[in-house]
Amino acid sequence: MAERKHDRKFVRTFFTTPTAVEGEEDSAKMLRGAVGLRGMKAPDVWVPDNEDATAPSMRDEGAENIVEVVAENGADFPGEIHPRVVWHRDSPATRYQGFKHMLQISDPERGAIEHIDGFVIPEVGDIDDWKKADEFITIVENEHGLEEGSIAMSVIIESGQAELAMGQLREEMGKPTNNLERLFLLVDGEVDYTKDMRAITPTGALPPWPELRHNTSRGASAAGLIAVDGPYDDIRDVEGYHERMTDNQAKGMLGIWSLTPGQVVEANQSPLPPENGSWLLDVGGRKVELESEDGVEIYDGNRLSLEETGDGYVLRVGGDGRELDEDELREELLDMTEYVPSMDDIVDSMEEFEAAKEAGRGAIAITQSATLRIDGVEIDVNKDRMWDEATYQAAMTPITLFQDVYRNRPDQHEELAEMYSEDVVERAMDVGA
Amino acid sequence: MAERKHDRKFVRTFFTTPTAVEGEEDSAKMLRGAVGLRGMKAPDVWVPDNEDATAPSMRDEGAENIVEVVAENGADFPGEIHPRVVWHRDSPATRYQGFKHMLQISDPERGAIEHIDGFVIPEVGDIDDWKKADEFITIVENEHGLEEGSIAMSVIIESGQAELAMGQLREEMGKPTNNLERLFLLVDGEVDYTKDMRAITPTGALPPWPELRHNTSRGASAAGLIAVDGPYDDIRDVEGYHERMTDNQAKGMLGIWSLTPGQVVEANQSPLPPENGSWLLDVGGRKVELESEDGVEIYDGNRLSLEETGDGYVLRVGGDGRELDEDELREELLDMTEYVPSMDDIVDSMEEFEAAKEAGRGAIAITQSATLRIDGVEIDVNKDRMWDEATYQAAMTPITLFQDVYRNRPDQHEELAEMYSEDVVERAMDVGA
Amino acid sequence: MAERKHDRKFVRTFFTTPTAVEGEEDSAKMLRGAVGLRGMKAPDVWVPDNEDATAPSMRDEGAENIVEVVAENGADFPGEIHPRVVWHRDSPATRYQGFKHMLQISDPERGAIEHIDGFVIPEVGDIDDWKKADEFITIVENEHGLEEGSIAMSVIIESGQAELAMGQLREEMGKPTNNLERLFLLVDGEVDYTKDMRAITPTGALPPWPELRHNTSRGASAAGLIAVDGPYDDIRDVEGYHERMTDNQAKGMLGIWSLTPGQVVEANQSPLPPENGSWLLDVGGRKVELESEDGVEIYDGNRLSLEETGDGYVLRVGGDGRELDEDELREELLDMTEYVPSMDDIVDSMEEFEAAKEAGRGAIAITQSATLRIDGVEIDVNKDRMWDEATYQAAMTPITLFQDVYRNRPDQHEELAEMYSEDVVERAMDVGA
Repeated sequence: MAERKHDRKFVRTFFTTPTAVEGEEDSAKMLRGAVGLRGMKAPDVWVPDNEDATAPSMRDEGAENIVEVVAENGADFPGEIHPRVVWHRDSPATRYQGFKHMLQISDPERGAIEHIDGFVIPEVGDIDDWKKADEFITIVENEHGLEEGSIAMSVIIESGQAELAMGQLREEMGKPTNNLERLFLLVDGEVDYTKDMRAITPTGALPPWPELRHNTSRGASAAGLIAVDGPYDDIRDVEGYHERMTDNQAKGMLGIWSLTPGQVVEANQSPLPPENGSWLLDVGGRKVELESEDGVEIYDGNRLSLEETGDGYVLRVGGDGRELDEDELREELLDMTEYVPSMDDIVDSMEEFEAAKEAGRGAIAITQSATLRIDGVEIDVNKDRMWDEATYQAAMTPITLFQDVYRNRPDQHEELAEMYSEDVVERAMDVGA
Repeated sequence: MAERKHDRKFVRTFFTTPTAVEGEEDSAKMLRGAVGLRGMKAPDVWVPDNEDATAPSMRDEGAENIVEVVAENGADFPGEIHPRVVWHRDSPATRYQGFKHMLQISDPERGAIEHIDGFVIPEVGDIDDWKKADEFITIVENEHGLEEGSIAMSVIIESGQAELAMGQLREEMGKPTNNLERLFLLVDGEVDYTKDMRAITPTGALPPWPELRHNTSRGASAAGLIAVDGPYDDIRDVEGYHERMTDNQAKGMLGIWSLTPGQVVEANQSPLPPENGSWLLDVGGRKVELESEDGVEIYDGNRLSLEETGDGYVLRVGGDGRELDEDELREELLDMTEYVPSMDDIVDSMEEFEAAKEAGRGAIAITQSATLRIDGVEIDVNKDRMWDEATYQAAMTPITLFQDVYRNRPDQHEELAEMYSEDVVERAMDVGA
Repeated sequence: MAERKHDRKFVRTFFTTPTAVEGEEDSAKMLRGAVGLRGMKAPDVWVPDNEDATAPSMRDEGAENIVEVVAENGADFPGEIHPRVVWHRDSPATRYQGFKHMLQISDPERGAIEHIDGFVIPEVGDIDDWKKADEFITIVENEHGLEEGSIAMSVIIESGQAELAMGQLREEMGKPTNNLERLFLLVDGEVDYTKDMRAITPTGALPPWPELRHNTSRGASAAGLIAVDGPYDDIRDVEGYHERMTDNQAKGMLGIWSLTPGQVVEANQSPLPPENGSWLLDVGGRKVELESEDGVEIYDGNRLSLEETGDGYVLRVGGDGRELDEDELREELLDMTEYVPSMDDIVDSMEEFEAAKEAGRGAIAITQSATLRIDGVEIDVNKDRMWDEATYQAAMTPITLFQDVYRNRPDQHEELAEMYSEDVVERAMDVGA
């Protein structure tokens, strides 16, 4: 991947907060609440949202609220701060309003800009539209005596134009007449993207847009940026949010928008390796997590059955039964199982591989053992996986992410140590160095 | 999305007709049949097809037939008329033949061109190949004293080259040495695309090509054009045609090729909201439409069972049963159900949101209520959905489509009023104004 | 598709071999084994791998081994020979090492280069990085008095940058300051791509990357190159390897990496039409291959049941039963079945269509008949498929592939004749001429 030039190499969470709420005694109440978040509830990137989350009539007041709240409390906020201002590829008035808000928020005499890491620009169009936003930020920097390029710029991808623009970043970012090196996050915005693409679903649910997410992840990889998925509206649906994140992670999109502190907690944890390993059994195309009890991994569903006969076993999947001897059964179960390694397991394997490499060996077998119990019958299996340099490098991604989190988020140290134990945390920080 | 400069903002149907059939007394018989179509059987775009649908030896006669039939009957045809001529990125002879046919068909003295909206160019290659076709049309316009750019150009995407070219349209369309602003439809042609990509499937069926369709939809969005999917060969398979259209619509591709008037009817209706709403139940990963009877939504499959016990319920999905009290059951069923709103429902919700917005509220809850019956047990559920400006805008797409249809297709007014009732049609035309 | 300028129009197999193994008496042992492969065990493209498969400390020796083994045995090797050298977009030292190895291997006085068809360059970045490799090869050619452009160049796509570069090949390959026309294979490298994209999966398995494979296939189609998928690590999992190849083929990616001679055999056969046709039955969303016995196609699973009643039939899928008369049953079964044609069937159909075309007919119906047996009940079905020019052209792909194999791989003639019979082979070579 291209070198990432930002302080953070990974961003798990992008949390937006309305900047001014009408009808409250203190219109900045929600900002004041959010700026106080700490630990797993605090996002990697906090976005005081002066665009869609805030009523149009409240946005001037919202810009003022950002200045006030960030000047007062920004120094202690554990994540980065990137306010979102208004912008639209089709509206010069909106773009000018966004410029004026950035100019106002960045005034060093007001004391907020020293805690602000960048701005988020929504509704960008093609690459020339991105350059307009970049130019306004350059002017803001110059007017306020800030170093050129010091304010990061993140964009929301919510149009076909912007999706295409991500393919051109690599060649545009080096050009002398822009400062696009300030780019930081590429954030998908599926609601407005759906509108721009004019997509329709029967229930009104958002389409999954797998190609958009791939292209965003690829754009980030090619240009040294960080990819973030858009909001997951159904706040109650924690399982759905996790499924979406797992799907994103397989695309290289490790960050996601969060709408509530509860979602922040889930999204901060999701890309980190689990505390405990687990075994999955593939039963007729579905992966079922086995229940671990006293070191035995138990399947208690009814789609699979196992029976001991005098001289072997009968294994039934759905209605189809097969007679197997012990070796065949073990082979069959090995093919049906997968192991999800814990943080501890990953660190173990990496240490083992590092030692082997130092001893001059290029590949080693890593073994996971388990006793499976199905219908009361127990079978021991050993799952081997060859580790070579490439496996090691690929396994490195979640560890590098963990190390980035640990270095940048001291406020999460306690929770991480509780989750993984001090020892595992320490070894995870040492591995791969 | 970029501004769409054509009379039609949406095209549901692209219907091709052979221009000259050998062995018939009147070789133009099929053209004469098609030009007489009205109402739901008449497509939004009618394509007298002087390419693949017509034998090579009949194409000169086909060009003549187009002139004759369109001059005589084109004035009364309710959709747009876009003949397809021959073209190939690899054959100058074919391209020259296509040019000559366009020149011939467009002669104002023959009386057809005043009813013709544009030409369809198949087998285009990279963007410079598109420019060759555009240039020929410019020469045709100039020779015949027609306004430059007045003849629309649609292309069939049936090569990897052309797929890539769609990523460059936005920057190429403004250039002074072409008239690519005349572009109208981007139509996928999966049969020849499959050949160009050299794809193989075991049964010889076409691959689904999801990425191509995404890229076509995105290209249309970015350049202000309209995306149309290719032909669905299995004419008898109405259900398959609908599934394909639903899949396309979730990608923002709202138009599709039709090979018969029967397919035209299906494709004209498919992107319009349904007449009646319906409830879907997710049973073990499959969505089943519930049967509505006297205001009760009934599940009568056997993958799910529900039983009332003395102090609660037992809900079984597949083999797994769970004991639930009434609130838990309701919560569970809410998670398993989705509602497909009718046109009436959508208009209702939009009116409600518009009223709320006028009263200064930015978000409202829209509730759908139902009584579900499973194994004779009845449970009432209320499904809430938050509507904000973004939800409203996204819900607008099918309504804008309806309005575009209603304005441009008076011949379908009667059928639409029958389907939705006069009242719903009227309110659908008023909403969002 | 763009014209493919190479001797091979298709490449099924890309087989890598370590160039120098430490601790062996003869470090070139594996090269000597691989160069001796013949017939179905010999790949279309053999890649002595002086990059990842060979320890860094052994690569200078590996380059020498390539020269020695290829000079001695390369003349008799039935496939093409394309050594992989080291390269990295981010490391000038690695690139310079790769250049020196190419210079060394290509020295005509050493006698290897006359049997070497090209080089494989891994870890390429954006298009300007590809040009650096191309320029080094030009210098190698010039230094050694070889014709400019005579050494092919294949690249491994293992970064987002390289994926994007494939969209620019068509415009870059004609430019006067490079010799990119030498490009041959675009090979996906999913392990390092996963690292570059920073993707994570729970078990550490590789993500499927469907968009990457689509884009590689499209890049190959647009630029006249050949697309090859990356290695399939789980060597024991033959079924999984086949599923991957079937999926690839539907994307137009007909070649795949092979890690063992066993995988080479599977991958050489996979894109060729099967020896025998077979019937598939779609049972509740799953396709089951019917067992053929004495001309009857038998379903013996238990998800579908068929019963004869006095005046008709009851067909049950899962739990849902329906009463049908004979015609309805036949219609229903027709919808549920698909036929996978054999090589013989495909050649038959093409011959039949060619004859019809000569007789002036543009479309014919091709019929496949079968007797289906379900629960002892037998029903005859006739499956019609319309063949027109487009169907014929699309069906041509596997035949053209076969013809390319047959012409270029005399060492496989015997095995192909055994598989298909002499007669079918002969007719397959004649069809479409």
